[in-house]
Amino acid sequence: MACCGNCFCCQCCCREGETRTPEELTILGEIRDEEDEILPRKDYESLDYDRCINEPHVEVLEGMDNKKAKKYEAVRWMMMFAIGVSVGLVGLFVDFFVRLFTKIKFAVVGDSVEKCRDKGCLPLSLLELLAFNMTFIFIASVLVLIEPVAAGSGIPEIKSYLNGVKIPGIVRLRTFLCKAAGVLFSVAGGLFVGKEGPMIHSGAIVGAGLPQFQSITLKRIKFNFPYFRSDRDKRDFVSAGAAAGVAAAFGAPIGGTLFSLEEGSSFWNQSLTWKVLFCSMSATFTLNFFRSGINFNKWGSFQLPGLLNFGEFKCPDGDKNCHLWTAVDLAFFILMGVVGGLLGALFNCMNKNLAKYRIRNIHPKAKFIRVLESLLVTMVTTVVIFVASMLLGECRDLSSPTTHNTTVSGSEDINSTIRQFFCTNKTYNDMATLFFNPQEAAIHQLFHQDGTFSPVTLSVFFLLYFLLACWSYGVSVPSGLFVPSLLCGAAFGRLVANILKVKLGMDIYSGTFALIGAAAFLGGVVRMTISLTVILIESTNEITYGLPIMITLMVAKWTGDFFNKGIYDIHIQLRGVPLLEWETEVEMDKLTASDIMEPNLTYVYPHTRVQSLVSILRTTVYHAFPVVTENRQNEQDFMKGNILISNNIHFKKSSVMSRAGEQRRRCQSMKSYPSSELRNVCDEQNTVVEPAEEGEDLLQQMLERRYAPYPNLYPDQSPSEEWTMEERFRPLTFHGLILRSQLVNLLIRGVCYAENQSSATQPRLSYAEMTEDYPRYPDIHDLDLALLNPRMIVDVTPYMNSCPYTVSPNTRISQVFNLFRTMGLRHLPVVNAVGEIVGIITRHNLTHEFLVAKLRQHYITI
Amino acid sequence: MACCGNCFCCQCCCREGETRTPEELTILGEIRDEEDEILPRKDYESLDYDRCINEPHVEVLEGMDNKKAKKYEAVRWMMMFAIGVSVGLVGLFVDFFVRLFTKIKFAVVGDSVEKCRDKGCLPLSLLELLAFNMTFIFIASVLVLIEPVAAGSGIPEIKSYLNGVKIPGIVRLRTFLCKAAGVLFSVAGGLFVGKEGPMIHSGAIVGAGLPQFQSITLKRIKFNFPYFRSDRDKRDFVSAGAAAGVAAAFGAPIGGTLFSLEEGSSFWNQSLTWKVLFCSMSATFTLNFFRSGINFNKWGSFQLPGLLNFGEFKCPDGDKNCHLWTAVDLAFFILMGVVGGLLGALFNCMNKNLAKYRIRNIHPKAKFIRVLESLLVTMVTTVVIFVASMLLGECRDLSSPTTHNTTVSGSEDINSTIRQFFCTNKTYNDMATLFFNPQEAAIHQLFHQDGTFSPVTLSVFFLLYFLLACWSYGVSVPSGLFVPSLLCGAAFGRLVANILKVKLGMDIYSGTFALIGAAAFLGGVVRMTISLTVILIESTNEITYGLPIMITLMVAKWTGDFFNKGIYDIHIQLRGVPLLEWETEVEMDKLTASDIMEPNLTYVYPHTRVQSLVSILRTTVYHAFPVVTENRQNEQDFMKGNILISNNIHFKKSSVMSRAGEQRRRCQSMKSYPSSELRNVCDEQNTVVEPAEEGEDLLQQMLERRYAPYPNLYPDQSPSEEWTMEERFRPLTFHGLILRSQLVNLLIRGVCYAENQSSATQPRLSYAEMTEDYPRYPDIHDLDLALLNPRMIVDVTPYMNSCPYTVSPNTRISQVFNLFRTMGLRHLPVVNAVGEIVGIITRHNLTHEFLVAKLRQHYITI
Repeated sequence: MACCGNCFCCQCCCREGETRTPEELTILGEIRDEEDEILPRKDYESLDYDRCINEPHVEVLEGMDNKKAKKYEAVRWMMMFAIGVSVGLVGLFVDFFVRLFTKIKFAVVGDSVEKCRDKGCLPLSLLELLAFNMTFIFIASVLVLIEPVAAGSGIPEIKSYLNGVKIPGIVRLRTFLCKAAGVLFSVAGGLFVGKEGPMIHSGAIVGAGLPQFQSITLKRIKFNFPYFRSDRDKRDFVSAGAAAGVAAAFGAPIGGTLFSLEEGSSFWNQSLTWKVLFCSMSATFTLNFFRSGINFNKWGSFQLPGLLNFGEFKCPDGDKNCHLWTAVDLAFFILMGVVGGLLGALFNCMNKNLAKYRIRNIHPKAKFIRVLESLLVTMVTTVVIFVASMLLGECRDLSSPTTHNTTVSGSEDINSTIRQFFCTNKTYNDMATLFFNPQEAAIHQLFHQDGTFSPVTLSVFFLLYFLLACWSYGVSVPSGLFVPSLLCGAAFGRLVANILKVKLGMDIYSGTFALIGAAAFLGGVVRMTISLTVILIESTNEITYGLPIMITLMVAKWTGDFFNKGIYDIHIQLRGVPLLEWETEVEMDKLTASDIMEPNLTYVYPHTRVQSLVSILRTTVYHAFPVVTENRQNEQDFMKGNILISNNIHFKKSSVMSRAGEQRRRCQSMKSYPSSELRNVCDEQNTVVEPAEEGEDLLQQMLERRYAPYPNLYPDQSPSEEWTMEERFRPLTFHGLILRSQLVNLLIRGVCYAENQSSATQPRLSYAEMTEDYPRYPDIHDLDLALLNPRMIVDVTPYMNSCPYTVSPNTRISQVFNLFRTMGLRHLPVVNAVGEIVGIITRHNLTHEFLVAKLRQHYITI
Repeated sequence: MACCGNCFCCQCCCREGETRTPEELTILGEIRDEEDEILPRKDYESLDYDRCINEPHVEVLEGMDNKKAKKYEAVRWMMMFAIGVSVGLVGLFVDFFVRLFTKIKFAVVGDSVEKCRDKGCLPLSLLELLAFNMTFIFIASVLVLIEPVAAGSGIPEIKSYLNGVKIPGIVRLRTFLCKAAGVLFSVAGGLFVGKEGPMIHSGAIVGAGLPQFQSITLKRIKFNFPYFRSDRDKRDFVSAGAAAGVAAAFGAPIGGTLFSLEEGSSFWNQSLTWKVLFCSMSATFTLNFFRSGINFNKWGSFQLPGLLNFGEFKCPDGDKNCHLWTAVDLAFFILMGVVGGLLGALFNCMNKNLAKYRIRNIHPKAKFIRVLESLLVTMVTTVVIFVASMLLGECRDLSSPTTHNTTVSGSEDINSTIRQFFCTNKTYNDMATLFFNPQEAAIHQLFHQDGTFSPVTLSVFFLLYFLLACWSYGVSVPSGLFVPSLLCGAAFGRLVANILKVKLGMDIYSGTFALIGAAAFLGGVVRMTISLTVILIESTNEITYGLPIMITLMVAKWTGDFFNKGIYDIHIQLRGVPLLEWETEVEMDKLTASDIMEPNLTYVYPHTRVQSLVSILRTTVYHAFPVVTENRQNEQDFMKGNILISNNIHFKKSSVMSRAGEQRRRCQSMKSYPSSELRNVCDEQNTVVEPAEEGEDLLQQMLERRYAPYPNLYPDQSPSEEWTMEERFRPLTFHGLILRSQLVNLLIRGVCYAENQSSATQPRLSYAEMTEDYPRYPDIHDLDLALLNPRMIVDVTPYMNSCPYTVSPNTRISQVFNLFRTMGLRHLPVVNAVGEIVGIITRHNLTHEFLVAKLRQHYITI
């Protein structure tokens, strides 16, 4: 099965995206499951990281003075602590049961093997092992059936979320339960999967859920806790939770913080970083506290850092000539980095093709097929490790008992995890030692066992592990990739060390090479940079490994990037998530904002009929609408409020007349609305609201021009196919942005006024009322139209964001991209030199695929 | 001397800035040296982090395709490596000579003391010590006289630079030479100063200088190396250099990277961070490589991480009950954090008053007075340590020789640095051990010496050290603050440990308490957060100290912040640097962009006479000018290019007439320019350049409105006192920003065209030509007016930045601040809803002091 990945590998090892024709590329926003790439889908929502509220709402938050801000800040710190502790406890829970189950399993099967060695009843032992593994995996698979998002490592999802894309269901309580319980069984079930990725995902869910004090799954868990009801706060907490997950999994609080920053936060916010680090530390030390307490009964001491640690690398006490690594070794590390990058690229390529195969052939079928696949993988894996251990292992001498390479934790002696299957005393079965142990123990063996592993064993182990891990990642159980990659790479590194030491007689430290091999392969697979360096340094607890680890990861990343993307990015791409890269390519600066924006706008007017709002909301899927006015031939309006808009500009009568005719034509085409009546209302209202103050301060007038009363009150219309070009691109003065959720909220709460009243009579909603339904705002289709008078008018101006960031049409792409990504925007209006909106830029207009397509168009038109 | 700090301490320990009246606060931009605060000065320049170039320049960079970008990227990586290695070598150089000088000094004086013990010639020994120290400090002082910027730690300067403020001379080669050589002598001279701050500053200078391949000091060092000639690149390299400095000083590459990020980079740029980490790693390992080679003659091994490391904290091998810290200890750590914060606040307060005293009384006087002050401090310090060691030391038992608490480096046994002055065998003089050693050795003693120090000794040591270190910081020698603070805090921590262990009989590990004490005091003084945590963790090479260090630093910072700012911020404030904080206070959101902007603009027109440009440049100090046009009653122009600007707006004739009259009046008041002629030129030109294409695509027209030919060609004028309000605030359509340096460059290179020619005849400058003189652009006063025809016209449109980020007048302050800080802006135009510029925001409008003043005005007007 896994071998067939090799066949289509040649195809995909060429650089991606080079072979597509421009025509193909322009058809974006669809999943194209054929041979080629999957393009970003348009049905993912973005997060609103930038706050989208109007000043009146800040006024509503008037109480939000420095004192209240301090209270909020204190609550935030407490939340961070709570998240950290909770994530630590989750880690403890998962770790405890994985250990328990694995221990029971290996004890039972190990005993059986030892007994059957002589009796020849080995198939029975195999059956026992199979029974254990299949049961565990079956449970894990069923949990994933309950909540399909719980499958896989979760890192692609978290990465997407932190990048600013909402993926449905990934931060829900049900996902959390399925993921945390599922990973426990999938790891205990002996699949070649890790628990680190799911830990990070679980942490992120805790971060998202805890500060909300509510859950969708359990609707009754809901307190009156009005804090943090915005995407911004939620994303901050998710960052912290994910960091805490890393911290708990690897005992690497700094690495966790950097992970969050690397994947998510687009701008460096000192106080957030500080809180995230605090949260990570809390998680690490909660775990440390309880594990030290439970394992050694030494409550109050802190001796067992993370769930995964690499033990202490150190030279035997007596040996003065030993050093962990020297400058000469660096050359080998670089070579290993290259090989690691190549292996990682191969792994990713095979896994990508497998994933595509699954999307095409497994996912469309009945769900239980997925369970069957998991069970098949489990069966093959179990049989392979059993047979390999029994048949292919070699008996090696135990290292001298004088060296006491205890792990940092001091918990387990390295020799307690060796397996002696079929071997005499003082020797051990090297293959069984690697296969018949939890993965962490196998990594420890490769890093610290002074005894040797035969090159054949290491090669076979590496090959089998590589193929099976590749096959396992993507099966529908919760499954991480860190530990399998580390183990696989450690075998490779140990193999290199073996060759150098034994064959070439070099004086090297095997453990270092195993570590570097692990780093190289992991780096080649996941292609993370800073955070991975720091995580590995922290896991080894040895700062002197900094340089070699960093160089290896760098080389592995560069080598791998030559062929394809990192595994997480591949899976993100397969899901069609519109991820934003770190920066745009230099060539993209040949494009400007106007080249990539969406020029067909659906907009609303400052005062709009309920009927029109409903129809706009029902017929479009946009999440924000520009609030605009059309400049009309209504002289009176302009003379009153907007006297300076176009100070001394004088128009030919004819031109004005032709435009007036056009307007009339358009009005007539909209039969449903009595526009003339509305216009009267508007005029009347203006006279009420704004008595023209001629003697006003000029600067004040200039500043307030946008706040002159909005002169239009048109029936709304969205661009339709029937429109002429002139209609489609008629000038619209931009006043602000309003979100779909805000509009729906206004309609549901009946915020509107009657035609014959002033807009001041419209009820006002507070900020708390506007955000009450966060994060699941009601849908427009939930709206009971019978309760609404379609002829009422909604004044959206108190609720719109009246000064979002905007760009001018000829801004370079890199500048647009920077603003968008750094500020965490969702909608970026493109406004021309005279304040008219000409288009809007969203996440989709900035994805790599879209930009490449536009650049090709650009070249073609040149 | 230092005691007198205590007297004015009460005044300043209240929260700052509370006592000022609004009137005082509105007078900003002046140094007010009286009792009160020093307000930000307006004469500091900002850096241009955001690129300010026009598209034509990108076209000039057309060759800048992905391939060339990759070449640039590769050069960047090589530069990072070069910077790292150089910084490492600088560290090596400084460290080597400091050690050498200190060793010679203490050997000579130590011998003399041992000899004189019986002979009674101790005063002779004192004189020897005095001679050594005074000579060293004299050299250091003289070096600082050569380049006054080299005084102090340099961290305030680097912090300001990374924040975006240019401080003259801080990244020059001369500063580097004086700093690196000076710190060597000031540390060797026995002052209570550290070499870490100056190392960071030196690193930053290397980062700034190396990629430029040129120097102002040595004018002849100048290659043809056209890369990185912008503030943006330079600041990135300075970040890397500073990080490398931290990495070299503390052996903390991750901490160094975080330091750069915390202090500088406003947004998290993954690829930059990765490069900075690489640079830091290079520095650490260069230093490690050479030190291991030189000290142990083991070339190729890496055994001596940073210049400062804290040795290995570990329990004696046999002791199973020993742990470095327990949960119970955390409570003491928090208390120590509080005390550390208080002590730090006291230190900062005293030092601030001393610094103010120096600014008032020493700096204005002749320069040699500063040398005398340095010598005075040296003399007092020398006498104090000598007398204290001789008279106040107690003889303590040596720890049992079985414990071998070697440092990580393995270089020096802890017992090799004890001093036995006047003590019998097997005992040592504890005071002399602390005073008669390099500071690093004293820190090691406090961290790792199992033998005890008497509480009296520790108290006396702490007190003397506190006062002398406070006095020394600010003396005009290169002087860091890290190591003295650590040593001082370690004494405090050891004192606490002593009391808990001996008096209360608790089972604690003294070294941990010393470390926490050091962290608490250092945290209380410098108030750094993330980076300091990581630096300390890396220096101890022990991840398990993460939580206690972090909590202690957090508590210390919060406690200290209650009283005053961190020492670096205080010194930045005393220099009047307009630093931008991390974020604005919540209350500031009551203000909008229009409240804080500068409404009086000095602007240029797209086509301007040389004469006007010269006069504008000579009479103003602004660094950028908006390029604007006035909307005039020139119907023809508007009908041609701007047909849609104000589509169907119709004006009363009377209103237009009155405005036309105003325009005429204004024109007549400008006698020096033949405006009518110019207007003709303008009209003529328009017909040439832009044949009106009536049938053009409407969207295209909308997009290009700003690029319609600029209709104005006025003589320039800046606001003058004589103007009426109407003149001052007449509507100006905003087209772009042009920098002073660009204008001067254009003038110097004679980029202009004659009145009777088209602007297309104007010579074009390439990007390379525009940036050739970076970083020191010629001044307008260097311009030889005789070479220029004042009646020629300059077309600035090809060079201006036509789409800078802008904000609308009613944008909330937090949003403005975020945009400004995150994007590293220098000028932020405030543009109203119809595209007219109404003001401009620069760094000064966003400093805390300015915002507070404006907020008060806001409250008063309400």
